[in-house]
Amino acid sequence: MSRTRLDRVRARLADQGVDALLVGPSADLRWLVGYEAMPLERLTMLVVPVDGDPTLFVPGLEVARAEASGATDLADLSAWGETDDPIALVAGTVPGDGRLAVQDQLWTSFTLALQETLPGAEWVPGSTVTAPLRMVKDDHEVAALHAVGAAIDDVHARVADLLRPGRTETEVGRDIAELIRGTHDQVSFVIVASGPNGASPHHELSDRVIEVGDPVVVDIGGVLDGYCSDETRNYVVGDVDPAYRELHDVLEAAQAAGVDAVRPGVTAESVDAAARAVIDDAGWGEQFIHRTGHGIGVDGHEPPWIVAGDVTELAPGMAFSVEPGIYVAGRHGARIEDIVVVTEDGVASANHRPRGLTVA
Amino acid sequence: MSRTRLDRVRARLADQGVDALLVGPSADLRWLVGYEAMPLERLTMLVVPVDGDPTLFVPGLEVARAEASGATDLADLSAWGETDDPIALVAGTVPGDGRLAVQDQLWTSFTLALQETLPGAEWVPGSTVTAPLRMVKDDHEVAALHAVGAAIDDVHARVADLLRPGRTETEVGRDIAELIRGTHDQVSFVIVASGPNGASPHHELSDRVIEVGDPVVVDIGGVLDGYCSDETRNYVVGDVDPAYRELHDVLEAAQAAGVDAVRPGVTAESVDAAARAVIDDAGWGEQFIHRTGHGIGVDGHEPPWIVAGDVTELAPGMAFSVEPGIYVAGRHGARIEDIVVVTEDGVASANHRPRGLTVA
Repeated sequence: MSRTRLDRVRARLADQGVDALLVGPSADLRWLVGYEAMPLERLTMLVVPVDGDPTLFVPGLEVARAEASGATDLADLSAWGETDDPIALVAGTVPGDGRLAVQDQLWTSFTLALQETLPGAEWVPGSTVTAPLRMVKDDHEVAALHAVGAAIDDVHARVADLLRPGRTETEVGRDIAELIRGTHDQVSFVIVASGPNGASPHHELSDRVIEVGDPVVVDIGGVLDGYCSDETRNYVVGDVDPAYRELHDVLEAAQAAGVDAVRPGVTAESVDAAARAVIDDAGWGEQFIHRTGHGIGVDGHEPPWIVAGDVTELAPGMAFSVEPGIYVAGRHGARIEDIVVVTEDGVASANHRPRGLTVA
Repeated sequence: MSRTRLDRVRARLADQGVDALLVGPSADLRWLVGYEAMPLERLTMLVVPVDGDPTLFVPGLEVARAEASGATDLADLSAWGETDDPIALVAGTVPGDGRLAVQDQLWTSFTLALQETLPGAEWVPGSTVTAPLRMVKDDHEVAALHAVGAAIDDVHARVADLLRPGRTETEVGRDIAELIRGTHDQVSFVIVASGPNGASPHHELSDRVIEVGDPVVVDIGGVLDGYCSDETRNYVVGDVDPAYRELHDVLEAAQAAGVDAVRPGVTAESVDAAARAVIDDAGWGEQFIHRTGHGIGVDGHEPPWIVAGDVTELAPGMAFSVEPGIYVAGRHGARIEDIVVVTEDGVASANHRPRGLTVA
């Protein structure tokens, strides 16, 4: 959200031999110029040329919103009317035989129209330009991640009171969403996965009634001052099945091993390997069916990816989740997740709730 | 959400000379197979070949979600693991020199990766295949649009009670969101634009305190049983400025003229022209800065577009907003919006709240 970030993007465009970065409504746009544009059918697009000033193309009816965001202090405004062709306007500002980076989440329909208008251009994903910059958070961003981490801790601190036998996941989820709204600017997602639903990592909410003895996976997140939270804890309503406690003990050790592996200079995949080794050794490897984590910042999921194959070298300021899980289909599941930030000599967690099983 | 829709897509692929339709998380996917997939970095993709059975590619950890949606009754399931390359898997199921339609909202990063993997293919926007089919709603869909229209009417019926001098737009907006949650499955958007903010059509919420005499534009929508609502009414808190009432009278006549112009066989742009003529004639043409409306259904905004240049011939079952507005920068604005459905011999409104100015 500053001229510095635009300057760093321009320097990287020069390094990569890219003529311009084209950015639609996205985390990239928020990060670059602080504008939360509407991801709809009317094109909003920031064009950052390798040389020269950036231009923000905005539908005429959204000019006041764009100006209120402050984005037009950082980029020249170009408003287009309802019967104008915004693709032609954007295309007119970039070299037709150039190498153009297009922000990853831009709608394909816009990219296909740009490709048709500029058939001689070469196209690369925008993340090749922005991801390495966004991955390393500055002090302000690290503070924001700790603040939103504390905000979601406050919600988890009240979850056990909401989990009572006879309530549905949806009822509990609504109450949790209300708590997130109370401590964040925005609710991003609410997963309340009870009993066998806990074995589906991306289960959200259902009308399943929570019963005595059910384990419940609660994975929740929101946005505060533009930065995202994401924290998972496991609860049991009433008596704990010893088999579930055993599984959870393994998971707690695996999550701790993952966090302990984080420090500058190691690779993203080595953190995955550290957590996975604990689960593999306990014989649950086949039940850990996803990567260990994902980067987080102005987007809920962003690079680096904590997975085999991501050889990103960790550096101070990188922030990501460490969230191993064990899923026993048809029975139950568990996942423990903290957001951590790489420091000069190790790691700091943005979440501080107890990681053990909470009996509600 | 039926084999019939998939069959109609296949017939249209044959008509258009397209070899396959590639659909990511989107309204198209919900409409085709009823699956609300996560629009994140892990690829979910339905491949519908012109001949043969459709395949749904799903990240392994979301298989249970996909199965629960019923989508796997309509398409073969292909689950991919965290270290697989889903782009290669998808590319392997389509002809490398084929003509491929890619769903409009798919992330550009996926499309660029597909283009790199299949350099000999030709790419067209998915809406060329799906839009003509989705535009004409069947009886079930029309009933759903009327039901969600009634649900948002119920919210507008309670808005006047929330608008009191001294409250902020954000406070009022939170209460409205709560009411939408009470009558819908999901809140889509809440615009409360008071005083001069009413002159910004896409203003959302701010900390502006509502004062006596303020006009307030309230434009709200949600989702119920998969279909969207969208309704705008204008309120005044306390005494009405005669200039605002005059503007609103013109707008009411324009909105009625737009709705009256709707019938089978006329063009989408003719509805825009009918509403616009009333505002032009009253001398406010320059202040009507957007199109008259947009289609609506499983998506909040979809074809047809009620704007000069859209020559879609209206047919029974088409549904769209009729929402002219007049915006006086720095002072105030107004917009009146109903969702209407084209019938065999005319038009039916999905919204029934009084269209006149409501004094709160």
